[in-house]
Amino acid sequence: MKVVIIGGVAGGMSAAARLRRLDETAEITVYEMSENVSYANCGLPYFVSDVISKRDALLLQTPTALWNRFRIKAKVQSKVTSIDRAAKTVTVQDLATGETFEDGYDKLVISTGARPRRLDIPGIDRAMWLRNVTDADDVKAALTSLAESDSKNKSVAILGAGFIGIELAENIRHLGLPVTIIQRSNSILGQFDPEMVQPLHERLAKHGVRIELNSQADHISETQVVLRDGRKIDAALVFTAAGVDPDNALARAAGLKIGVTGGLWVDDQQRTSDPDIFAAGDAVEKSGVLTGEQTLIPLANLANRHGRLVADVIAGREVRAHAAVGTVILGAFGFAVGITGLSERAAAKSGVAHQVIHIHPNSHAGYYPGAQRVSMKVLFDPESGRILGAQANGEDGVDKRIDVIATAMHATAQHGGLIIDDLMDLELAYAPQFGSAKDAINIAGYVGNNVFNGTTPTLQWHELEAARAAGAQVIDVRSGSEHGNGHVPGTINIPVEELRDRLDEVNLDNVVVYCQVGQRGHIATQILKAAGARVRNLDGGFVTWSAGEKALG
Amino acid sequence: MKVVIIGGVAGGMSAAARLRRLDETAEITVYEMSENVSYANCGLPYFVSDVISKRDALLLQTPTALWNRFRIKAKVQSKVTSIDRAAKTVTVQDLATGETFEDGYDKLVISTGARPRRLDIPGIDRAMWLRNVTDADDVKAALTSLAESDSKNKSVAILGAGFIGIELAENIRHLGLPVTIIQRSNSILGQFDPEMVQPLHERLAKHGVRIELNSQADHISETQVVLRDGRKIDAALVFTAAGVDPDNALARAAGLKIGVTGGLWVDDQQRTSDPDIFAAGDAVEKSGVLTGEQTLIPLANLANRHGRLVADVIAGREVRAHAAVGTVILGAFGFAVGITGLSERAAAKSGVAHQVIHIHPNSHAGYYPGAQRVSMKVLFDPESGRILGAQANGEDGVDKRIDVIATAMHATAQHGGLIIDDLMDLELAYAPQFGSAKDAINIAGYVGNNVFNGTTPTLQWHELEAARAAGAQVIDVRSGSEHGNGHVPGTINIPVEELRDRLDEVNLDNVVVYCQVGQRGHIATQILKAAGARVRNLDGGFVTWSAGEKALG
Repeated sequence: MKVVIIGGVAGGMSAAARLRRLDETAEITVYEMSENVSYANCGLPYFVSDVISKRDALLLQTPTALWNRFRIKAKVQSKVTSIDRAAKTVTVQDLATGETFEDGYDKLVISTGARPRRLDIPGIDRAMWLRNVTDADDVKAALTSLAESDSKNKSVAILGAGFIGIELAENIRHLGLPVTIIQRSNSILGQFDPEMVQPLHERLAKHGVRIELNSQADHISETQVVLRDGRKIDAALVFTAAGVDPDNALARAAGLKIGVTGGLWVDDQQRTSDPDIFAAGDAVEKSGVLTGEQTLIPLANLANRHGRLVADVIAGREVRAHAAVGTVILGAFGFAVGITGLSERAAAKSGVAHQVIHIHPNSHAGYYPGAQRVSMKVLFDPESGRILGAQANGEDGVDKRIDVIATAMHATAQHGGLIIDDLMDLELAYAPQFGSAKDAINIAGYVGNNVFNGTTPTLQWHELEAARAAGAQVIDVRSGSEHGNGHVPGTINIPVEELRDRLDEVNLDNVVVYCQVGQRGHIATQILKAAGARVRNLDGGFVTWSAGEKALG
Repeated sequence: MKVVIIGGVAGGMSAAARLRRLDETAEITVYEMSENVSYANCGLPYFVSDVISKRDALLLQTPTALWNRFRIKAKVQSKVTSIDRAAKTVTVQDLATGETFEDGYDKLVISTGARPRRLDIPGIDRAMWLRNVTDADDVKAALTSLAESDSKNKSVAILGAGFIGIELAENIRHLGLPVTIIQRSNSILGQFDPEMVQPLHERLAKHGVRIELNSQADHISETQVVLRDGRKIDAALVFTAAGVDPDNALARAAGLKIGVTGGLWVDDQQRTSDPDIFAAGDAVEKSGVLTGEQTLIPLANLANRHGRLVADVIAGREVRAHAAVGTVILGAFGFAVGITGLSERAAAKSGVAHQVIHIHPNSHAGYYPGAQRVSMKVLFDPESGRILGAQANGEDGVDKRIDVIATAMHATAQHGGLIIDDLMDLELAYAPQFGSAKDAINIAGYVGNNVFNGTTPTLQWHELEAARAAGAQVIDVRSGSEHGNGHVPGTINIPVEELRDRLDEVNLDNVVVYCQVGQRGHIATQILKAAGARVRNLDGGFVTWSAGEKALG
């Protein structure tokens, strides 16, 4: 059997290596357009600033090593220019020599990835991007040269505050250059809800990354990016990081079915509309487990596992791809934000019913040195309690909490599911350096359980104004000194400890309570419920409300 | 309703606070024998060396704060000496004044905890232990005084290499004192398998903790601990840390049913054999989810959640306790070991069929600075693939991997379960600082999947000698230089890259291959299987084999 694989990074190389392990006799050829196979694309932003100083560290495999260990023929600088499905051949251009040749296949695997979205504005030609190691070499050279130059204009502009844009910005700051990110929407990282990325926004600003929200580039001059509203952003270098699109021109030209998202369509065995052609990775659309909709999730981990699955199918094994949850994390300047599943925004957009909780516990036991706040937001289904998504941010322990929720959600996909209450009972590793006896995850379960079963009615930070307009009294149940240090404007202060004795000051018909993070508000809610009040607790307390208000500017 | 709670730490205080939130009118009284309520017992070892320098940090609540916020009457230095179940009263002794009084209850909650197991040997009276804040004050004073003295004998001996023994040893080393741990069995931390705690053993030794395995104290003299074999261990101070026993004398005297383990028996609503008496925490036996057997799991997280559940039941909610998995972690000198579910030892002891894998991946992407090895061991059922337990060790990311597996196992308990293959597909948070596109957990899934479905037959480190005795050829498939740096004695070296060309040197009838961690061994296994060999891969490679051999001494 002869297998040809187009694209030698995550999905393609996973397919190639797995196939060899399942079939010692298959002839396996990989054509890769760039100069390297199996490079660490997620490391590229860190290479440009020397956080990753050794270029070799990025190159996980070489064609020689792949041949010696796996008997895989990996050809770099080899661009597949067309697929002849009837003849079962591909046409390949050797980019070094310009020569063209044909190669036949029994099975073909397309793993062409995604490419940076290119804004169609004047001057875009001088914008750089970061897709492969050669790009990274060019970017590193350009940035280093700029840093060492005596030019007056050393500013860098980045179009787009997505993952790569922010990672690039951090590393450009490491090089000491001024940097501005120009973002079309009203918050960074559109996968997240605004209040959950506001602390990262502040961290970026603190480290000198200028962020222009609600801004669009009109054109790029030789020294500046000019915005539609006429503002001018100095920019000796410009980067485009406004998302990626599936790179499926080849598949499209071959007449393969394209999905509703613009990604290559595949069935649950990663098979395209041609039974002898498979596909994996960022070029391909995925099935979303939570909405049932097709979706684009350009992530290395999904590319790897779908590549592996393709090999299993080609080798004759019975396997099926799981619908995807989508889990991502980003860290910059020591602060991390992570998300798994649906954001509140995405749930609303897809019409998925949801309840929301926000919590702000410690990353580990507060009495042990080094505990940091980890803020979490969890969405669940109001009827079943099924977990729909989670976001977290903080300096420590964000990855762990997102991974635990992702695991709980995977169970959902496969086995009917963990619900919000289950988070109470997860037995997580506890010693004071690592977590808490009631870990952040367990606390999410406790808070969620109280909301889910109606023990504590809550309202969201973005619902407070409407509640007040409808006549709700808003009470700060924190201490007088906390209230003095900042509070929701126009709210009165009755510390929870005094509440039982000051019930005559409360509008029992319609009252909202809040504290710093929601816990004392929960206690106050119970006290007022017992007194017969119609009461709601401001979810996530003053911390969430403040982040939300700041995010809305 | 009047509720009396005996014991004011994890289980008792969780019950008290939750009950108040569910019932504003209940009269709630907590009697605590020691001088403090709600103290952080897991922090006590770190307080004695000033890692936790502020004593107040250990005191999470005070009786005054509990009254002001929760209207909970918490009485410290108050020892309940008897329960009159017919009269529904308890007799309480005020330890400060010696006076005795009676108090009535509608519902009683027993949360008396566990106490250090006291060895019955001569001289044990001078041994100290660490159960509450007063103990910690005494221990800190004694250690500080010893450190500052000009005594020639500044050595400390600890009886028992369990969690508290090792945590104490670390903190005593922080004070600069020589310390020896005397351990009865052949490895530290008996909940773990020996090869998985060997690296911690080495880390402890490197930091000056002397560990005497297979050793028992015969008696304690004024300056030494004398072992049964006559060896003498200098010991100006002696600590007993040889496990804990349920503290249920009170319950026993009241005629409440005691379980097979010696812990207080409860039903799945944490109700004792008396319908008006509930119990939670270390005094109580738990139902083990994996074996179906009753078990003792003295952990703060289970105490907290069972305490909360007791409050729910008393408040009239329908809830049930989940069977327990048991998850624990320990860190010392920057190295962590964690376990969830069954060890290989425990599975064998309970007659639970199991398959085992060992892996040694990185804590995060190898190309990003700071990646550390995290070693994992996972047990699963050979028929269903159900995950039975996991252990991990390393400098970084151990807690995260254990938490993910614990979550996957909880799903098992509630929903029929994640199996080993599911670990392949978990979508975990990946950026190079936090994990890998193929995270350690995913790799456990890949390796486990290959073992589970028979793709790669393996054998364990402790099975290698028997295999050789039965005629197996053992081949090191690493590079020549790796082989030169250390290998399993008497094994030949054929690098995996040369294996296809050197098949004539292989005993195809019976061959075992190994590499550093198991991955190249897996490739070699596939090459040899294709050549018709009866081949097995040494699970976990040279790293696991070495740890196991060292652990056995």
